[in-house]
Amino acid sequence: MPGTPPKHFTYLGPEGTFTEAALRTISAAEHGVRTPARSVPEALEAVRAGDADAALVPLENSVGGAVPVTLDELITGSPLMITREVLLPVEFVLAARTPAPLASIRSIAAHPQASAQCRHWLQANVPDAVVVDVLSNAAAAISAAAGEYDAALCAPIGVGRNNLAVLAEKVADRAEAVTRFALLTRPGPPTAPTGDDVTSLAVSIRHDQVGALLAVLTELAVRGVNLSRIESRPTGEQLGTYVFFLDCTGHVAEARVGEALQGLRRICAEVRFLGSYPKHRLQPEPPVAAPPGLSDGDFADSAAWLAGLRTGS
Amino acid sequence: MPGTPPKHFTYLGPEGTFTEAALRTISAAEHGVRTPARSVPEALEAVRAGDADAALVPLENSVGGAVPVTLDELITGSPLMITREVLLPVEFVLAARTPAPLASIRSIAAHPQASAQCRHWLQANVPDAVVVDVLSNAAAAISAAAGEYDAALCAPIGVGRNNLAVLAEKVADRAEAVTRFALLTRPGPPTAPTGDDVTSLAVSIRHDQVGALLAVLTELAVRGVNLSRIESRPTGEQLGTYVFFLDCTGHVAEARVGEALQGLRRICAEVRFLGSYPKHRLQPEPPVAAPPGLSDGDFADSAAWLAGLRTGS
Amino acid sequence: MPGTPPKHFTYLGPEGTFTEAALRTISAAEHGVRTPARSVPEALEAVRAGDADAALVPLENSVGGAVPVTLDELITGSPLMITREVLLPVEFVLAARTPAPLASIRSIAAHPQASAQCRHWLQANVPDAVVVDVLSNAAAAISAAAGEYDAALCAPIGVGRNNLAVLAEKVADRAEAVTRFALLTRPGPPTAPTGDDVTSLAVSIRHDQVGALLAVLTELAVRGVNLSRIESRPTGEQLGTYVFFLDCTGHVAEARVGEALQGLRRICAEVRFLGSYPKHRLQPEPPVAAPPGLSDGDFADSAAWLAGLRTGS
Amino acid sequence: MPGTPPKHFTYLGPEGTFTEAALRTISAAEHGVRTPARSVPEALEAVRAGDADAALVPLENSVGGAVPVTLDELITGSPLMITREVLLPVEFVLAARTPAPLASIRSIAAHPQASAQCRHWLQANVPDAVVVDVLSNAAAAISAAAGEYDAALCAPIGVGRNNLAVLAEKVADRAEAVTRFALLTRPGPPTAPTGDDVTSLAVSIRHDQVGALLAVLTELAVRGVNLSRIESRPTGEQLGTYVFFLDCTGHVAEARVGEALQGLRRICAEVRFLGSYPKHRLQPEPPVAAPPGLSDGDFADSAAWLAGLRTGS
Repeated sequence: MPGTPPKHFTYLGPEGTFTEAALRTISAAEHGVRTPARSVPEALEAVRAGDADAALVPLENSVGGAVPVTLDELITGSPLMITREVLLPVEFVLAARTPAPLASIRSIAAHPQASAQCRHWLQANVPDAVVVDVLSNAAAAISAAAGEYDAALCAPIGVGRNNLAVLAEKVADRAEAVTRFALLTRPGPPTAPTGDDVTSLAVSIRHDQVGALLAVLTELAVRGVNLSRIESRPTGEQLGTYVFFLDCTGHVAEARVGEALQGLRRICAEVRFLGSYPKHRLQPEPPVAAPPGLSDGDFADSAAWLAGLRTGS
Repeated sequence: MPGTPPKHFTYLGPEGTFTEAALRTISAAEHGVRTPARSVPEALEAVRAGDADAALVPLENSVGGAVPVTLDELITGSPLMITREVLLPVEFVLAARTPAPLASIRSIAAHPQASAQCRHWLQANVPDAVVVDVLSNAAAAISAAAGEYDAALCAPIGVGRNNLAVLAEKVADRAEAVTRFALLTRPGPPTAPTGDDVTSLAVSIRHDQVGALLAVLTELAVRGVNLSRIESRPTGEQLGTYVFFLDCTGHVAEARVGEALQGLRRICAEVRFLGSYPKHRLQPEPPVAAPPGLSDGDFADSAAWLAGLRTGS
Repeated sequence: MPGTPPKHFTYLGPEGTFTEAALRTISAAEHGVRTPARSVPEALEAVRAGDADAALVPLENSVGGAVPVTLDELITGSPLMITREVLLPVEFVLAARTPAPLASIRSIAAHPQASAQCRHWLQANVPDAVVVDVLSNAAAAISAAAGEYDAALCAPIGVGRNNLAVLAEKVADRAEAVTRFALLTRPGPPTAPTGDDVTSLAVSIRHDQVGALLAVLTELAVRGVNLSRIESRPTGEQLGTYVFFLDCTGHVAEARVGEALQGLRRICAEVRFLGSYPKHRLQPEPPVAAPPGLSDGDFADSAAWLAGLRTGS
Repeated sequence: MPGTPPKHFTYLGPEGTFTEAALRTISAAEHGVRTPARSVPEALEAVRAGDADAALVPLENSVGGAVPVTLDELITGSPLMITREVLLPVEFVLAARTPAPLASIRSIAAHPQASAQCRHWLQANVPDAVVVDVLSNAAAAISAAAGEYDAALCAPIGVGRNNLAVLAEKVADRAEAVTRFALLTRPGPPTAPTGDDVTSLAVSIRHDQVGALLAVLTELAVRGVNLSRIESRPTGEQLGTYVFFLDCTGHVAEARVGEALQGLRRICAEVRFLGSYPKHRLQPEPPVAAPPGLSDGDFADSAAWLAGLRTGS
């Protein structure tokens, strides 16, 4: 039922990863039911099937980039809607069964994305350790707890869950790495505009890339709608045909965003609306006002003017 | 009263010029009152003051270009609206008091625009005649009738009125020269769309000409609105500031034209709507359909889609 | 011979008009031979035929707009080149054979453009006088001197030449009205860049006006070349086909102007180069630097970079 | 030494994957030394260090999209250049130690990208089998050969190498899936233009995404340079700052590509040239000619015209 806060949450598991940590920043989820899913498709399928009210899955990482499986799932199957975004700083820990000097560590279990984000730190601090790929951050922690490897590169949430000892905190090559998660529900009315919102879209273009992409950007630019993100994904049909994922500043309820969406709808092979939701900011920033001539008031003025021309009044 | 056909017409006089000939192609004018005005400003002032219902004045000529005084009058004073355009092929006659061989003609009275449009014909056919500038085509005919000059280059309508003899017909360097006239009334509801209409605008831009003019054209291009005419006029304020007169294909009642007008209203210093009216074609041509995605149906579809997104239905 | 200053000048006559006044601001003309021509075409023909070295003709007026005959002449016949522009403030005088109070003036001779630029002044100061159209500012002065009319609206230069008495000075509705003149010669090397130059062009576009004009402006905008002037003129072929006269900031010797010209040459039906010459400023203004990335140095850097890519060095 | 064909090749290992199969389509590699690398960074480092002459690594897959690690490596460290692309249809096999009916298969080892591309086939044909993630296609084959799992989803090249029996051929949800590989060398002169070439670039933009990306696309569009591919990658600095990987039609030696590159160089924060090389086509297609006005001949014509204007000849 629209407006009812979700109670049953699913998320990309296993337990003990950054996704669970992100989910628990949402109050309704902290107090609701949280069920890990084995994959992004499984999580989204649970929402589509009504087995869960909402699913939290990773969208992109400031170092690793987009999460392809999430993007692909968003444009296949029945539509889902982003109702909230969660940004979470990504800070790994190096953890082991028992406290030990770094120099004694000979093997480290790590998910490839985790070791990629910490490559320089590992070279500088544990140059002699062999890094062994495992399939998730949680699996890394579990394998270290089981004694399979001397240590694990894992999420802080995995430490307590596996009774590990922290050998090093805030392990990362870039201090400010951030992962962005999306909370997905079945389609319904968007959340009310806050004045600092994001609108997410997937648009399909084809053939003449320069011309088609220029046309898409022009529909936005003419209405002063800026992009905070653009990602291309192949459609799977052939090399060179793409879906573009766009995050626009503003809310579908705003006139300029609405008119831009209508323009995209008319010129694109397909536009899938993925939601309008509040921008999550780790540091508060003043929202950017609409450019001159492009506020809701300006649109209302020009609509009234046009109505007057049409009736001759 | 809107919808009432005009009865009292004024036009750029004097009698016996192309403007009178153009006016008489309008049935209501042929049967109504027709009063010549001494100048375009006087004709338009008569309409503004309610002394006439409509004024016919020249807008542009395919050889001589825009008629500056008409453009300037359209953007100063209280607004007027074009409700009809009339195209009239421009064919001059060389006429005299009595029939005479061309070789005997020594002086020809002509309005400078008329002699400019016939320069090569005059050089080829009456190379020895002196062309004397006079202030209108009608004045040329009158002065020839008065015997001041051997002949006049004038409009066919001036021949009978002054009892002149035609020495040569269809005098012109370019066979297809055309003058376009506008019938102006006080503002009211535009005439109903016919499917082959023109919308006329005057827009003010300033400063960065490339950027501002690009923005204007982009507002039109994004909605698939084409231009059949663009004229620049100085605003009189300083060199380099312009008003642009635009004739767009389509009618203000059409969605894409309406949205483009709203866009111009938002970005331009000023937009003056000068009317939507049927295109006058000397040869019938099939009207051009809206480009893909830009018909009224496409706009209605995208508006319905947007409404659905906003309500979540 | 290129580089030789012109000695024999012609100009739009008759003597005693603003054009003669403008010509005499050029030192070489003040000391050279000055021959009035009866028309702009006659003046330009004298240069084409070698009978004069240079011709000064009016290009545009800040109130009256472009001078159509000059534009039309620039794009027909053999090419000519603008080597200098002259701006002249337009200040009329009201003059008569003998001093007289304004209230006594019953008839005023004036060129229609002159009376148009002074309409409000005339209404306010000599409301009872009849304004009679004559064919030039000089003719106005001559007819007043001959006693045909009580007074003349004319150029200051016409006063002394006709022994007139000035009844009112600086007659104008707009204090800052300016006329811009062009000095035309046969084609040759442009004058050296000064850092504050203008490049004039005539470009032919056709058919799809929005698309073609957008393409022209984009060629300029991409290279950061701004327009100080844009005028459309019909080609004379049919309504709706235009030549655009463009005044661009910068000199053909500059890299960005040169690249933009090459782009126009490739996309336009025709581009006629009308000259690069120093900007004449009535008030000194600092020249505008090339936008970031578009200086000659930036072009040289990018050319060197490209050369390196091509050779692999 | 430029021009010397590479002899020592490295590639993304292990042996028995699609990358080795792609490498062996290159004649020089089939006859040269081929050394597998454990990762894309290791392969590229071998070329940078001079330990190998060339490295073949995957760039993108028509189903899975870009290979992030390859893109990231291309824009960090010392520059490398793509000298050749190889397209390879992706056809998996389901293989086991010994022939067996599909219905008897209970566990299947597969790399996650492989199982993702075959998901529907697996559901339809081996619905009861558990799919177990392993770290490469080669690892899948090895683990099936070792009896750890009943079968492997792997590349055809892995069958013979591990003495497996093929249970099913051409396993894929999409018949036409293709992977594109790049052969990378140290920088040098590009290969000669063939008339059907690709130019790859990485360009950095920032802040105002709509404006900056519009500017990039406009630099290409103005010169008629089309894109066959556009990929965005985060720079790692913060969410919302991107590097765009562009594949343009044409060769750096062509005038229009060269001018477009110079334009990008001037407006972008950084442009890294990644090579011009022959387009690999699985089916022959006629190369697309330069648009009107944009051939090398047109550029030469406009350059000659400009040179004439500048010298006045």
